[in-house]
Amino acid sequence: MFNKVYLVGVGLITGSLAKDLKRRKLAGMVIGIGRDAQRLSKAQAAGIIDGYELLQESDVSDANLVVLGVPVGKSVDSFALLKSSLRSDTLLTDVGSTKCDVIHAAESVFVELPSKFVPGHPIAGSEQSGFEHAQEHLFHGRKVILTPTCKTDVAAVQSIRSMWQAVGASVDEMSAEHHDKILSATSHLPHVLAYTLVNYLGSRLDANSISSYSAGGLDDFTRIASSSPVMWADICAANRQEILESITAFEDHLNELRLAIDIRDKDTIIRLFRQAKRMRDMKLSGCGDK
Amino acid sequence: MFNKVYLVGVGLITGSLAKDLKRRKLAGMVIGIGRDAQRLSKAQAAGIIDGYELLQESDVSDANLVVLGVPVGKSVDSFALLKSSLRSDTLLTDVGSTKCDVIHAAESVFVELPSKFVPGHPIAGSEQSGFEHAQEHLFHGRKVILTPTCKTDVAAVQSIRSMWQAVGASVDEMSAEHHDKILSATSHLPHVLAYTLVNYLGSRLDANSISSYSAGGLDDFTRIASSSPVMWADICAANRQEILESITAFEDHLNELRLAIDIRDKDTIIRLFRQAKRMRDMKLSGCGDK
Repeated sequence: MFNKVYLVGVGLITGSLAKDLKRRKLAGMVIGIGRDAQRLSKAQAAGIIDGYELLQESDVSDANLVVLGVPVGKSVDSFALLKSSLRSDTLLTDVGSTKCDVIHAAESVFVELPSKFVPGHPIAGSEQSGFEHAQEHLFHGRKVILTPTCKTDVAAVQSIRSMWQAVGASVDEMSAEHHDKILSATSHLPHVLAYTLVNYLGSRLDANSISSYSAGGLDDFTRIASSSPVMWADICAANRQEILESITAFEDHLNELRLAIDIRDKDTIIRLFRQAKRMRDMKLSGCGDK
Repeated sequence: MFNKVYLVGVGLITGSLAKDLKRRKLAGMVIGIGRDAQRLSKAQAAGIIDGYELLQESDVSDANLVVLGVPVGKSVDSFALLKSSLRSDTLLTDVGSTKCDVIHAAESVFVELPSKFVPGHPIAGSEQSGFEHAQEHLFHGRKVILTPTCKTDVAAVQSIRSMWQAVGASVDEMSAEHHDKILSATSHLPHVLAYTLVNYLGSRLDANSISSYSAGGLDDFTRIASSSPVMWADICAANRQEILESITAFEDHLNELRLAIDIRDKDTIIRLFRQAKRMRDMKLSGCGDK
């Protein structure tokens, strides 16, 4: 499918994609591009990539596909360093967790948004990061959201869609704005809350008390607070407005519950908890969760 | 160890305790007490209990041990119905998630707090409830907190301590007030946040979008929102003041992060996320988590 694929940033997501593309013989050679030769060399030794180039010296002129997988705050820098060698007919996509920001980054560098750039976001991954955690079948049964703009070539979208489908994902298309709104609620806000809860607990208790005096639920609840701080700070900056709105709306809901607790309105508390449990149980039964 | 054990409320925790007591031959006969004959009959058919009595008609005069395992809001009613047949030399303990409230309930019913009553809280369990989810080894490696008062008999505390140790738990003692303070942070607040997040998501998105457009993290994060609404409404009522204070303190932390996002103070965002990740990773490595 692609003779030569360049991964700009070799991490959990791009590394997993590389594994699947190779396993399914959809990629010939996979080249990693990054800033740290030592990390890239390790990724090559681990068999994730077949070779590597440093970002500053990279040449992607022979690429059939370039996949950008850097923290979203590095998008401008990365596009700028790719610009000189990227052919206008080369497929370009990204795997960033925010989409408006990445599109703006591309516009700021390329002036005219490249028609072969298909902004994308595979909804996969975990609190882990780094190519060491790359795994086959990561995208199996997962959603990938593509957010083409009016400048995006329809055939390019189809190629990227086919690629993700080939590694087991199902693909939705929506506007970048809609993507950022949904993800601020389902992903960015939960990370903000998890990081905050752990910091709050840390301010009151030592780590030993936290682990001793919490049941299994807290471990699950705070797992995403082990996610990459730099990646998530980038996301907070990139999707700032939507995240602020999500925090505010969440606090409105929290205040409704707080008031019910305060005035001992048990009926309201039970109603709110039942509503949440029903929603969560429905969600679980509906999506074949592990 | 105990010839005859009565479980008032046969659920996940008391059912698991019964399984372990029997497995380790620490209990002779285990009798369930409750309000629903059909449920009790099923628990007997499942081999969790050897017989049952309805709470209104119960007689625990031949008990060696009575374990109260009802939602904490039912403590007063349950103590009142046990009072006439409970011998003053019979060991009594409970497994409630709040302790001050249960102690007050006992005081209100018995006037003088029974010296053989050892308030307790095994930090175990999950979002599931009901004896159907009872399992052996549930308490293995878990903490049990006992909160004896100045009225509590030291030998009674030792007996309950030995029982929990025999089923694999390690036992700490602290005041009921201290217990309620710690648990409001490590357990009650996370439940409040999880229920609230699910309700917030439900107000913005349909259940299908929530499950489609969230990675694995959200499933873990919201798992505890599948917990029993009645049990958790009881806990919110029982530990009202501590939970309100925890919510307020959490919001202070959330506002610190929100401000940093708002004024684009990326250094602070990264610092807060790093601090949380360090704490969470430390906790994990320290407690042999699954």
